[in-house]
Amino acid sequence: MFFEDVAVGDTVEYGSVEVSREEVLEFARRYDPQPFHLSDDAAAMTPFGKIAASGWHTAAMVMRLMVDKLISEGFATLGSPGVEGIEWHKPVFPGDTISARSGVVEKIESRSKPFMGIVKSEVTVTNQDGDIVMTSRPIMMVARKPSA
Amino acid sequence: MFFEDVAVGDTVEYGSVEVSREEVLEFARRYDPQPFHLSDDAAAMTPFGKIAASGWHTAAMVMRLMVDKLISEGFATLGSPGVEGIEWHKPVFPGDTISARSGVVEKIESRSKPFMGIVKSEVTVTNQDGDIVMTSRPIMMVARKPSA
Repeated sequence: MFFEDVAVGDTVEYGSVEVSREEVLEFARRYDPQPFHLSDDAAAMTPFGKIAASGWHTAAMVMRLMVDKLISEGFATLGSPGVEGIEWHKPVFPGDTISARSGVVEKIESRSKPFMGIVKSEVTVTNQDGDIVMTSRPIMMVARKPSA
Repeated sequence: MFFEDVAVGDTVEYGSVEVSREEVLEFARRYDPQPFHLSDDAAAMTPFGKIAASGWHTAAMVMRLMVDKLISEGFATLGSPGVEGIEWHKPVFPGDTISARSGVVEKIESRSKPFMGIVKSEVTVTNQDGDIVMTSRPIMMVARKPSA
């Protein structure tokens, strides 16, 4: 799957993952030790009400869903120069199951790097109740067909 | 440290962290198993040249630096509704030491939630050579002074 195989409007379903309480705590201890990610008592004092996953953990779990799909399809990704935005709309709680899907919103041929192009997508992440918990707009570098 | 204690233009230094090869591999295996984050041989075929940390791992390491500082200063953060953008300018390699600093760019009082305000910052992450490896524009919810 090269840059040429992607079209604006294409959508992809990345499947889902159940959020493990142990992993929420492990991620938070290492990367985001704010009390509302580590303790139900502390979280009860905040709008979350109970322990919620770090937004960075949610982003990482979504990345894993996307990478598994992209690798399984032989997608020629060359990494990412960034993300145009991330919104954490609702908390993600241990025990939730989150699902991700994306749509291609823009394709840009690279002038300086003729071996690749830029693909911009809009990613939507929902929980088991259908609530949107996260949106993001990743930018991906994708290899062009060797013949192109 | 409440919303009232923050001013546009304030800057914060978050210190630095050395990037561990073991942790780069561990994060990549779990959340971003693209070949150029897992194998020097695969990375040699890409613009990175050698194993580079997942951009999400860099973002997570930076979050840890920021949280440690904010907690040590008693900063009344209530979490984040999102990030206005992330740019990964250069790869972060195992053995690199990355440092983070931020500047406050905007403060917004919340009308719907009088107990808090929104603080927008610009974060800059550099490596040991002074190269900018990542920038981001996080949005933070910060509690207002109880008297306010």
